[in-house]
Amino acid sequence: MSDAAEYPALVLKRGEDARLRAGHLWVFSNEVDVKRTPLTAFEPGEIAVILDAAAKPIGVGYVNPNSLICARLVSRGLDHALDRSLIVHRLNVALSLRERLYSEPYYRLVYGESDGLPGLTLDRFGDVIVGQTTTAGMERLKDEITEAVVKALKPQALVWKNDAGIRSLEHLPEYADIGYGELRSPMIVREGGLEFECDPIGGQKTGWFYDQHANRDRLAQYVRGKRVLDVCSYLGGWGLRAAAMGASEVVCVDVSAHAVEQIRRNIDRNNLGDRVTAVKADAFDELKRLREERSRFDVVILDPPAFVKRKKDFAEGRIAYRRLNEMAMQILTRDAILVTCSCSYHMPRNALLDSVQQAARHLDRNVQVLEQLQQSPDHPVHPAIAETEYLKGFICRVLPA
Amino acid sequence: MSDAAEYPALVLKRGEDARLRAGHLWVFSNEVDVKRTPLTAFEPGEIAVILDAAAKPIGVGYVNPNSLICARLVSRGLDHALDRSLIVHRLNVALSLRERLYSEPYYRLVYGESDGLPGLTLDRFGDVIVGQTTTAGMERLKDEITEAVVKALKPQALVWKNDAGIRSLEHLPEYADIGYGELRSPMIVREGGLEFECDPIGGQKTGWFYDQHANRDRLAQYVRGKRVLDVCSYLGGWGLRAAAMGASEVVCVDVSAHAVEQIRRNIDRNNLGDRVTAVKADAFDELKRLREERSRFDVVILDPPAFVKRKKDFAEGRIAYRRLNEMAMQILTRDAILVTCSCSYHMPRNALLDSVQQAARHLDRNVQVLEQLQQSPDHPVHPAIAETEYLKGFICRVLPA
Repeated sequence: MSDAAEYPALVLKRGEDARLRAGHLWVFSNEVDVKRTPLTAFEPGEIAVILDAAAKPIGVGYVNPNSLICARLVSRGLDHALDRSLIVHRLNVALSLRERLYSEPYYRLVYGESDGLPGLTLDRFGDVIVGQTTTAGMERLKDEITEAVVKALKPQALVWKNDAGIRSLEHLPEYADIGYGELRSPMIVREGGLEFECDPIGGQKTGWFYDQHANRDRLAQYVRGKRVLDVCSYLGGWGLRAAAMGASEVVCVDVSAHAVEQIRRNIDRNNLGDRVTAVKADAFDELKRLREERSRFDVVILDPPAFVKRKKDFAEGRIAYRRLNEMAMQILTRDAILVTCSCSYHMPRNALLDSVQQAARHLDRNVQVLEQLQQSPDHPVHPAIAETEYLKGFICRVLPA
Repeated sequence: MSDAAEYPALVLKRGEDARLRAGHLWVFSNEVDVKRTPLTAFEPGEIAVILDAAAKPIGVGYVNPNSLICARLVSRGLDHALDRSLIVHRLNVALSLRERLYSEPYYRLVYGESDGLPGLTLDRFGDVIVGQTTTAGMERLKDEITEAVVKALKPQALVWKNDAGIRSLEHLPEYADIGYGELRSPMIVREGGLEFECDPIGGQKTGWFYDQHANRDRLAQYVRGKRVLDVCSYLGGWGLRAAAMGASEVVCVDVSAHAVEQIRRNIDRNNLGDRVTAVKADAFDELKRLREERSRFDVVILDPPAFVKRKKDFAEGRIAYRRLNEMAMQILTRDAILVTCSCSYHMPRNALLDSVQQAARHLDRNVQVLEQLQQSPDHPVHPAIAETEYLKGFICRVLPA
């Protein structure tokens, strides 16, 4: 028996252990037997042993009395304390998968619950690691995580990009700073033989969207010799990859002037200035303008930010997806490809497909779904935790009816 | 206006046009206004104009008074007669997609409803085409289809593999014969640089499962240097591809002696005899035997026949999937890959994932879903017709808990 037995106990009500035993890792506050173990007795992020109603241990996790998800299970049984040594172990298990999947050290190294480290994500950019903690439990373990990362990866820098809105659910402040080492700028990500400058402090999320890497890899057969529009381009990931795969002409559109500047630097860095241009514009406005000037593209890629951030945004968000997809179809050539994505957890895959189909019928087009897209394998889905799957998309062929 | 206006009319009841207008192609017999247009007045397979309750034409299709799906829409509006010329057009549209997707002429050329030719599938094996009709309407059009195929593809042979059980729903006989030209044997399919012998007359379905082609392509990073078990191997597709991608040792298991003979010929044909063996055994029996002899594999591939052929088989079939996946996990090494598939339309993707997760919990393993598998893009999904999507699978990493 390890030190784990010495952690304070959090006891669940009768029957509330079922979801955990089926593989989930979350405890909701109404599932705790607060008469026996008041949540108020815990500090935010405190480590605990989680017990079922019969006081049988389920495993070790951490508690946040101020959060709806009041505890997360980190390991089953009592064999392991929740310490640096466990984090190093989890990190090495995560690393061995990524090293098998990727020939270069650019990937999401740790994807929270799916990698057995709830509330922690780590993205690797060569010798720079960008981390995010989204729970008080992981925030409290930052020193152990830093030590584990240094031990396992010997990075040049570890940046904490802790400015996700979701942190407010755990009453955590938002900040971004360097947790270890020194950051040389610009930070570079390598993907598909290209280099992209990105910004771990000022950029979106951790600076790069690794979740679309595998999907961008699939573009080749669709873009060769084609005219491509990359909508909500961010740093030019889709567009520049398409150009490198042989697209004849690529236009990247993003609403952020800063992003467009970076796209232009990335175009130069990869010598793609003869084929790629970047436009600063709102996606809807630009699609409307292109339609009005009768521009046509063989491939349009839609990778917008989440339109359905919360469940209650669904009705409105779905309309936005429908509208965006319809506007994209209106500037497609006769036998064309639409790559359409949603990173909204609350927008189900079928709802996105329905939006595409409704848009197609409205314009009297036929759609064939050629490929279904999903988050890259460095963002593994936990089969018991639906919330770990959020990215969905389709590669569609759009034809006249 | 074309000749289409001269077809007899099939009138729908009020409101029953909504699904067709949303993109679906099927009419169910209870949706027809049989007082105005009795189904009994139609011959099986007869071409008709489908009208809504206000006598407004929806399009042209064919009728089978003896089938629950009593009509299928082939084209919208009245601009096109349902004749050889339309079939040639549809064939060329289908062909242009496949020629973009594949560098060699081995693919599903026509996938029924999704390619605008409900009830018809055509698989291409170089200059041999293997066709299947599953409706009286397409059966009646066989001459036109043959002429269209000859015109568009100039094949050496067209084989009709019309022995699918589903034909009984349309009161069609089961047979397999050569519809055009001459068949040299053996028929060869090329995939991933390998050659496989297959049998369009005596084999399963059309002789080869093109639907898994794209999924087999994804094996490389998981099998290199690994020991691989290919369960329900059929002609060795997964196993031989794994070997060619660098697996150190592969065992193919199939219950059919004839299939195992063909696997062995395919092993020889591709000079993979040093690494691949074929075993004739029932999947469950062999997994049990391997467990008992404590064999271990780094990768197990499960591509079984449909366990849920009809909706009412779901409860039983789901148990079979759960059992098969659990037995496979029991012979995995410590950090291993499970490739698990279901081709049952009536087994939803989530139910397959639940089976995997239940098996994992029962054995105290953790699963990470790395990739979601789907039918290859030469089997496009029709976004309004759920029935066109049937193949699902997962590439999972299986770890100790």
